Amino acid sequence: MLDDKILITDGKKFKRVFNINSVEKVKLPTGEIDGEKLKEIQKGSSFIVNNRRYYVFNCDLYDYIMYHLTRHTQIVYPKEAAYIMVRLDISPGKRIGEAGTGSGALTAFFSRAVGKDGRVYTYEKREEFVSIAKKNLSRCREFDNIIFHHKSIEDGIEERDLDAFFLDVREPWLVITQVREALKPSGSLGILVPTTNQVSQTIESLEDNNFFILEVSEIIMREFKINAQRLRPKDIMVGHTGYLIFGKKVVDI
Amino acid sequence: MLDDKILITDGKKFKRVFNINSVEKVKLPTGEIDGEKLKEIQKGSSFIVNNRRYYVFNCDLYDYIMYHLTRHTQIVYPKEAAYIMVRLDISPGKRIGEAGTGSGALTAFFSRAVGKDGRVYTYEKREEFVSIAKKNLSRCREFDNIIFHHKSIEDGIEERDLDAFFLDVREPWLVITQVREALKPSGSLGILVPTTNQVSQTIESLEDNNFFILEVSEIIMREFKINAQRLRPKDIMVGHTGYLIFGKKVVDI
Amino acid sequence: MLDDKILITDGKKFKRVFNINSVEKVKLPTGEIDGEKLKEIQKGSSFIVNNRRYYVFNCDLYDYIMYHLTRHTQIVYPKEAAYIMVRLDISPGKRIGEAGTGSGALTAFFSRAVGKDGRVYTYEKREEFVSIAKKNLSRCREFDNIIFHHKSIEDGIEERDLDAFFLDVREPWLVITQVREALKPSGSLGILVPTTNQVSQTIESLEDNNFFILEVSEIIMREFKINAQRLRPKDIMVGHTGYLIFGKKVVDI
Amino acid sequence: MLDDKILITDGKKFKRVFNINSVEKVKLPTGEIDGEKLKEIQKGSSFIVNNRRYYVFNCDLYDYIMYHLTRHTQIVYPKEAAYIMVRLDISPGKRIGEAGTGSGALTAFFSRAVGKDGRVYTYEKREEFVSIAKKNLSRCREFDNIIFHHKSIEDGIEERDLDAFFLDVREPWLVITQVREALKPSGSLGILVPTTNQVSQTIESLEDNNFFILEVSEIIMREFKINAQRLRPKDIMVGHTGYLIFGKKVVDI
Repeated sequence: MLDDKILITDGKKFKRVFNINSVEKVKLPTGEIDGEKLKEIQKGSSFIVNNRRYYVFNCDLYDYIMYHLTRHTQIVYPKEAAYIMVRLDISPGKRIGEAGTGSGALTAFFSRAVGKDGRVYTYEKREEFVSIAKKNLSRCREFDNIIFHHKSIEDGIEERDLDAFFLDVREPWLVITQVREALKPSGSLGILVPTTNQVSQTIESLEDNNFFILEVSEIIMREFKINAQRLRPKDIMVGHTGYLIFGKKVVDI
Repeated sequence: MLDDKILITDGKKFKRVFNINSVEKVKLPTGEIDGEKLKEIQKGSSFIVNNRRYYVFNCDLYDYIMYHLTRHTQIVYPKEAAYIMVRLDISPGKRIGEAGTGSGALTAFFSRAVGKDGRVYTYEKREEFVSIAKKNLSRCREFDNIIFHHKSIEDGIEERDLDAFFLDVREPWLVITQVREALKPSGSLGILVPTTNQVSQTIESLEDNNFFILEVSEIIMREFKINAQRLRPKDIMVGHTGYLIFGKKVVDI
Repeated sequence: MLDDKILITDGKKFKRVFNINSVEKVKLPTGEIDGEKLKEIQKGSSFIVNNRRYYVFNCDLYDYIMYHLTRHTQIVYPKEAAYIMVRLDISPGKRIGEAGTGSGALTAFFSRAVGKDGRVYTYEKREEFVSIAKKNLSRCREFDNIIFHHKSIEDGIEERDLDAFFLDVREPWLVITQVREALKPSGSLGILVPTTNQVSQTIESLEDNNFFILEVSEIIMREFKINAQRLRPKDIMVGHTGYLIFGKKVVDI
Repeated sequence: MLDDKILITDGKKFKRVFNINSVEKVKLPTGEIDGEKLKEIQKGSSFIVNNRRYYVFNCDLYDYIMYHLTRHTQIVYPKEAAYIMVRLDISPGKRIGEAGTGSGALTAFFSRAVGKDGRVYTYEKREEFVSIAKKNLSRCREFDNIIFHHKSIEDGIEERDLDAFFLDVREPWLVITQVREALKPSGSLGILVPTTNQVSQTIESLEDNNFFILEVSEIIMREFKINAQRLRPKDIMVGHTGYLIFGKKVVDI
């Protein structure tokens, strides 16, 4: 479903995603280009407008999420989404739960990774977010494997024996028992929270609810300036997105 | 293929993976447990040996790679493997190239992510590494989608129109032209190198060979002690694994 | 010499330094305050203008350098200046060399640390920088212990038997021999460079010139939001200022 | 007082400090050297024992603290000590308070920075620590400006109108009122705590006690391997030492 989209970039700040079938005119930092003309440009090629070169690339899921998603909330960024998928062992055929849906960034990664035989059950209590997430996902998803629930998981999770669950909610400690019921034994739980206070409170709740805590960590990405002769990290970087907590459901104690 | 494996851990330093069908006796820090007895323990449960509790979990690909892989080289660690998969858009059905195979850690992640319709073409010039990687992968892979090449890509890459390629070799600048030939237009290239000198030299080679460089970065993971009342990062952490370079093949200039 | 200066801050973005004897009117985010009125406010007290509270504090050297210095160059920031002083053992009575003077931020720290019996010999080849640095330093320095040289150290250093030398120049490898001549045996050398290429070239030059390299490092400061209930690092942080290299002059090999 | 001490290092792991007047025999990784012979070696020179070269340098305060101090507690490391001195504006003539004394590492830095006209008032409640700190400091201090108090500051601080105070105690929130009484208006307070829970509790106490909080931060040092051709950070690094909190006493609200 990303096949009809392209990424246009000037290698500087301009990075935008367009649907090649519906774009009429693209405004560029140095001018504009017509949608018809754009269709003739092969992916991997470039064009020049007023002495600046623009590159046309295929649109990766990364690009769609970073440059095109309609955001109404802080999204889970690719650096965290990537590690979450590895830590929760998200893979073909798995059944995964998630709350809240938010803008659907992580949902998109999960959906693609579990494939046509897997399922992603995603919960979101705020109605407007559900509809935006649905729209976001309809434009990028490859598989018809997402089940949307417009409800808070405080009111219970409908599925059972899930392989993994991911929580991106303000007070995860309020829903650990619900998640526990929905997970299979040894099932994986991942949680993202921005503050240390939330980490402490979540750890306590996980310990109270018989989860084995695998790891508490943060993923920091340090970007470099692309300059072979003057290599150095960028002057300004993202200082913090959130803390990650991973655990497994223990059944017998 | 990981279904027959389990992870046993005491929540401290002891983390080991076993094949439940073949394990006879497991040595533990506080004693041992018999293979037959282990089979009766449900995943997600625990057992006690000499006052220490041990947990039995299903074996994730993460666990297999971190605690069970036969390593003869520095492996690509999960924190980098995860981000590489997102940045190279590794997903169902894709055709991916890789050199060198090394111990097969990244190959395992790629194989699972591209699924049964995808392919991973992996090159390794050192014979003993090929056979160890094959053994490592035979024990964890879910899909029969890996093609092993026992050769250096300096002698050419046999495939064409690949969606993405990943390089974990000492001198990537020697093989950029070969990788370029093997990639489709707009195809993605990822490179991991440990030193800044290699980053500089690789950037120059990519620029000379008409690659668009998306990003140069490093992924730093900071783990915390799991202690709600005394939350703090671990005293010692991994200071460096490597630098990542991502680019796309440009065709027209 | 900082006794006549005050720091005014609203605890948000507004942080400004004023000379209490010469300030006439201070523009504030929410209005203004008269210089005469300001004189009556004790350091450590606050005043309110249009519902916003402003605090009046004594002006530390840190404040002077961060919020008041006339800058025409990238300054050496306090986090690096602090570590440099410890690593070069800057202390009362020492004789220290420095090039270039730049805006004089580090010179100010050195001057205060060596005290009235010490000396700071500072070299700067660009005339306009010398005069700005002199002005900056005249307003904050406590001791009359700075000797300004308006020349490049490529043309030689006039002093001998210095305890330590600090280099903040674009091509430190061009002046290592001059610095070597100026240092006493076992004397300390510190160097700040922004790029990895410069680090490599500097290490080579130090090794060629018989310096013992103690350390190559970077100092990263991670600030937190001041919020007890929602403690977390700031969203955006300084990603890079520079790399530090420290060595000692070896005399016999 | 460090003039009689030398640092001997092989440029690898061996880094040791000796008193040149009292050392009899030095055990080295590859053999030993006699104290008499050592006295003939100029600082900045080297000697060879069984094919390994050893360097003899003057002993900086950094060296004394890192390689020679008798430690019975976690010390304040130079990277933090350096930044604390800048942030608390420790400089000639200042009167500084500190609790606890611990091993005296920070006391040593403070003593040297305030010089002969300044004073360091240091509090320590555990008797054995007082005597070890006294011994540590007697061997390195240049100035007779340290006043030792063998008492907990929970029982009050004897001084008034101090320029700055530094707290390295387990529960700083228990002594904020005492520190407040001892500081002059606009006086600076620095605090080091290892856990996020302590940071939160300390912030609350500072706010309750009318301190203006300047900054909450951590100082991370990343060391590199000294290799010009293969430049890269060290594989393993210190992940955490502590969080720093800085504030100023506000008097009128």
